Amino acid sequence: MSNKIYKPKSISGFPEWLPEVRLVEQQWFDHIRRVFESYGYCNIETPSVEELDVLRAKGEVDKEIYVIDRLHKEEGDKEGRLALHFDQTVPFARYTAQHFNDLVFPFKRYQMQRVWRGERPQAGRFREFYQCDIDVINVDNLPISFDAEMPAVMWEILTALPGMQDEKIQIRISNRKVLLGYIESLNVSENIAAQILAIIDKIEKIGAIETSKQLNELLKNNPLHALMVDNILSLTQTNDLKSVQPENEQMKEGLHELITVMDRLKHLPEGAVVADLSIVRGLDYYTGTVYETVFLDDPNYGSICSGGRYDDLAGSYINKHLPGVGISIGFSRLFARMVDKQKLDLKAKTPAQVLVVIPSEEQQVAAAETAQILRKNGHKVELYHAAQKLGKQLGYAEKKGIPFVWFVPSEKDGMHQLKDMYNRDIPNKDFKDPSEWKANA
Amino acid sequence: MSNKIYKPKSISGFPEWLPEVRLVEQQWFDHIRRVFESYGYCNIETPSVEELDVLRAKGEVDKEIYVIDRLHKEEGDKEGRLALHFDQTVPFARYTAQHFNDLVFPFKRYQMQRVWRGERPQAGRFREFYQCDIDVINVDNLPISFDAEMPAVMWEILTALPGMQDEKIQIRISNRKVLLGYIESLNVSENIAAQILAIIDKIEKIGAIETSKQLNELLKNNPLHALMVDNILSLTQTNDLKSVQPENEQMKEGLHELITVMDRLKHLPEGAVVADLSIVRGLDYYTGTVYETVFLDDPNYGSICSGGRYDDLAGSYINKHLPGVGISIGFSRLFARMVDKQKLDLKAKTPAQVLVVIPSEEQQVAAAETAQILRKNGHKVELYHAAQKLGKQLGYAEKKGIPFVWFVPSEKDGMHQLKDMYNRDIPNKDFKDPSEWKANA
Repeated sequence: MSNKIYKPKSISGFPEWLPEVRLVEQQWFDHIRRVFESYGYCNIETPSVEELDVLRAKGEVDKEIYVIDRLHKEEGDKEGRLALHFDQTVPFARYTAQHFNDLVFPFKRYQMQRVWRGERPQAGRFREFYQCDIDVINVDNLPISFDAEMPAVMWEILTALPGMQDEKIQIRISNRKVLLGYIESLNVSENIAAQILAIIDKIEKIGAIETSKQLNELLKNNPLHALMVDNILSLTQTNDLKSVQPENEQMKEGLHELITVMDRLKHLPEGAVVADLSIVRGLDYYTGTVYETVFLDDPNYGSICSGGRYDDLAGSYINKHLPGVGISIGFSRLFARMVDKQKLDLKAKTPAQVLVVIPSEEQQVAAAETAQILRKNGHKVELYHAAQKLGKQLGYAEKKGIPFVWFVPSEKDGMHQLKDMYNRDIPNKDFKDPSEWKANA
Repeated sequence: MSNKIYKPKSISGFPEWLPEVRLVEQQWFDHIRRVFESYGYCNIETPSVEELDVLRAKGEVDKEIYVIDRLHKEEGDKEGRLALHFDQTVPFARYTAQHFNDLVFPFKRYQMQRVWRGERPQAGRFREFYQCDIDVINVDNLPISFDAEMPAVMWEILTALPGMQDEKIQIRISNRKVLLGYIESLNVSENIAAQILAIIDKIEKIGAIETSKQLNELLKNNPLHALMVDNILSLTQTNDLKSVQPENEQMKEGLHELITVMDRLKHLPEGAVVADLSIVRGLDYYTGTVYETVFLDDPNYGSICSGGRYDDLAGSYINKHLPGVGISIGFSRLFARMVDKQKLDLKAKTPAQVLVVIPSEEQQVAAAETAQILRKNGHKVELYHAAQKLGKQLGYAEKKGIPFVWFVPSEKDGMHQLKDMYNRDIPNKDFKDPSEWKANA
């Protein structure tokens, strides 16, 4: 054995949690999965890598991508280059195209995998992180009801994540056709149109006054520019969709879709979901509904759950028209925030709910048998590993955050005893037979 | 939008499953996790990558490793090189060393992550695959009881995986100290000793006669070689540990440990676990107990679940003596075998247990509300997406393998109806109120 010691360091941007934090992370994943499945979404996993050609099908890929290579390439290795996926949407589109004939449409799937981005690490930005996505994809037409299902699912998830209950969040919904339709009615160049969108996209950050200033500057050569800026601003700030006058078919369609979606979300609490025509979602490929989710007391933190509808998701990989709608939780960033804010209950360092102690060597077999009976009844049970001093065994339960300790009878026909570690003034419970202790009782 | 279509291909060695297969894969993971946690193992996840220096701490790494690199490296990027982990043991050792002061020992952890190996793909060999590991690590001393817990946990898992119930498997256990001790007593060179081990390691594949031939060839210059070969063979073939005469302290210790482990596994069915002194586990770093698991009707398939004890797991990363014992299921290889053998129940393409149909436009709202009530009661529910012809909606349930279909009342004060899709001769169940239908009822 080598005596050289290499002291390992954390790798910047690649989070790693202690067991007590991971335990809560698992609860988060379990909760998200439970809600996704309660709406009938099926799970898929794709490989961690895609062919570079797949990623390039929509144009050149940007520099955030990690490629993989064998450390010692052999002469004559002629593999296509593989890259770690940077999101789950591209792999999902590729998956749908590749397995098209084996899927039933509308195809509702959820995906909770790690993705990788080679960005410079900074607070809240990871290079390896989890995303939790749902998407629905269909052939030719996708009913608008799915646009309403997305935020309903996410509201149910985000408001019930362990530690998130006190956070005030809001899902904001727009339909890109409204703003795009309106800008089209202005008869400005494509370049100006794109710049208007880019300015509106920042409105939450820079505020209405600065937005107005930037729009005025951009449009100053247009004789109607003051009116145009006013109209754009009042459109993006409106609270009453029904009062908006559509300028063209595109705008009309967008308004109709958005009103329909909002109408189908009426069962959610007041303020949970709002229509907000200033939502643009940057330069993404969305063509209709778009979503963002913010902390109401920290809107500049950015969106924790976003998505939208795309007219044709998998068109780069298959000659079919496949519209889709999807939404994604930036899981690791959100989870890390809650860790930092110390909002999580980190008492337990193990899933075990009960420690079966071994008071003496003679009780070793009885303790092992009892542990096995408790497991069969659905309990998570650690059997202490040796007949050591009782104080040491109880101290171990305490250090690991195991809430109950089990004592096998010290004499024949004696009673089993269950001790509550967190409520020591509660008297022990006695059992004739360990199978009398019911799970979750 | 580009009209160029890139038709994606499967990437050799990187498995990807259809939804109906993934559904069973999830059941496998859930089952494994449930059993691991029932024994009090906590979960950890480590990043997908390690520093190359961490992997090299035990000596030069071999060519199976994938390194990652940013596709477009920038001038001045000075990152240490990162490699995808090729197992979970090295990351676990690094994790334990790095977080030593924050962990409670004995540290019992499970890990179920993907690992990567840049091998040439071949049947049953993947480049990206899941492993499911448990390990216990302790400071200075690790009680032998954990050596017995490993195969007990794995037996419980492997015999109850969905689709595996008919497979006859056997866990074989040895203790390396026995064979190593015996070989030491032969006073042969280190080189010869290693070659004896390598020959014994193949005994299952090549048989006793060929083993004897190869050992005779290897030892022919030794005057006692016939006796030595006989003794080695009879040692590795013995069924009665208590009859083995130890030649030295090492052998005695190994025999004692092995007998203790077998003794603590007496509660398992006859033949589930056997002592087999021919088990060597190749050139791995084990120092005591070793495990292999085979299909009894296909022993040459190789081990599906292996592991062992190591004297000092994390010694390359920390100046502490940290003995450990662990065992690992080669998950993806085993799962893929069961897929190939068509042993899995692939009826369902979705987790949804019930489809709420929308017989008419007017019933849309009632159907949505009913779906929501069923979800609140723990059911997994898909709401059909449009008021289409009933036959189409039932056909959808059938194609997706959804076992139940729910009809909201067609008139006020009418009854809800639940139809069993797989047992159509069973009469529909009627409910006044959807909350009367209990989950798992």
